[in-house]
Amino acid sequence: MSRNNTRPGRRDTAPDSPDLLYGYHTVAAALSNPKRRFLSVKSTLNMADRLKQAFASANLTPEIMRPAELDRLTGPDAVHQGVVLEARPLPQPRLDQIPRKGVVVMLDQVTDPHNVGAIMRSCAAFATTALVTTARHSPQASGTLFKSASGAFEHVPFVKVTNLARAMDELRGYGFSVLGLDSVAETPIDETAPTFPLAVVLGAEGKGLRRLTRDTCDRLVRLDLPGAIKSMNVSNAAALTLYALSRSTKQ
Amino acid sequence: MSRNNTRPGRRDTAPDSPDLLYGYHTVAAALSNPKRRFLSVKSTLNMADRLKQAFASANLTPEIMRPAELDRLTGPDAVHQGVVLEARPLPQPRLDQIPRKGVVVMLDQVTDPHNVGAIMRSCAAFATTALVTTARHSPQASGTLFKSASGAFEHVPFVKVTNLARAMDELRGYGFSVLGLDSVAETPIDETAPTFPLAVVLGAEGKGLRRLTRDTCDRLVRLDLPGAIKSMNVSNAAALTLYALSRSTKQ
Repeated sequence: MSRNNTRPGRRDTAPDSPDLLYGYHTVAAALSNPKRRFLSVKSTLNMADRLKQAFASANLTPEIMRPAELDRLTGPDAVHQGVVLEARPLPQPRLDQIPRKGVVVMLDQVTDPHNVGAIMRSCAAFATTALVTTARHSPQASGTLFKSASGAFEHVPFVKVTNLARAMDELRGYGFSVLGLDSVAETPIDETAPTFPLAVVLGAEGKGLRRLTRDTCDRLVRLDLPGAIKSMNVSNAAALTLYALSRSTKQ
Repeated sequence: MSRNNTRPGRRDTAPDSPDLLYGYHTVAAALSNPKRRFLSVKSTLNMADRLKQAFASANLTPEIMRPAELDRLTGPDAVHQGVVLEARPLPQPRLDQIPRKGVVVMLDQVTDPHNVGAIMRSCAAFATTALVTTARHSPQASGTLFKSASGAFEHVPFVKVTNLARAMDELRGYGFSVLGLDSVAETPIDETAPTFPLAVVLGAEGKGLRRLTRDTCDRLVRLDLPGAIKSMNVSNAAALTLYALSRSTKQ
């Protein structure tokens, strides 16, 4: 591809390795996504029966395997539930292609695939416009990521960018206001009056937002936590943020 | 111990294996908890320096080890950050000993230690009165559980019960109202007018509340999710529930 690599929101030009999708909800959602291109599918007899309609609609015949054989494909800790699907990665939209409305979630170097997957799932639950992550410091597309998202990657555009601050500026150029979540900010998120479209940026646990990310926000807000511990798991913080924003009457 | 084993909220009479605590926040919180009894502590030189004050206050001298030696204690996937502490389990209160105020979170067979740990962390962030789980189908006290809680077990009473429905009845006897979270309930949680003290029960992902658990609730409520996916990761659902309840003016 000849696309300019320095542009935020570019497609990843590296040769894409296939997405490894396992688990009932994850595979069922992929099978019903017309944008997916399938490479292979392996299933236990039981799961093949349970997903019979979905396989038929997708014009796929699973290779029948025993659970232990699937274990070897996914690693022993993966809860594959008897089905493993390989598919081409979904086409990744550029930032200028996503709808200019609602809420875009941006992650600043959040790396744990369980967390990014759970955040994607919350994004789907709250009809979020897109999820944006940094390309270098975010988890590679992986089985854990997709399993944790429970099919949500089929519903919410996922954009990997090279430079988060530049992506924030680009969204601002499209009319988005940019809110950063910072545990030491003065304003609680439910006392802010957000304007939409809105991009909200969350940092990695422990590190928080990087300096440049923080400086690129229009405003910083915090979650109002009354207890002894003032920080939450980042996917929990993302869920609260989406909930609080969904309660705003201005959206 | 001669305590009656059939009583909900009883102490676990099995010989307790020690708690394995690793990671900076988890260990630092344990070291500053006067109720903790320590058995051993192993640390890298760097982390021993970083935790010097905390070790001194707890009257502990860590055994210095290299990171790879700590890996062998915790397993290769554990993010121990250079410190591993063995301690006796904290004394577990009975249900009749916890304060009769605020919110008690009850988990119906939620088993993933990442999820239970993250829920405990949210409980600490929202000053929850206690976290109650079923003894059989909840994760054993484990390194992953404590690491995911990031020190929260030192702040929030953790009660394991044999029979959840009986525990719900017991709390009701102490004046608690009992709310169940159910994705198909009619009332959104933010349209309910909860009365406190309140126990809120969450079920395992996929399975939801068991029949008897559901029947033992005073009321069922749901999270109001506008998007394509109507379920969330259970720790995310717990965080939203605690946030929504903390917004109630009646607490």
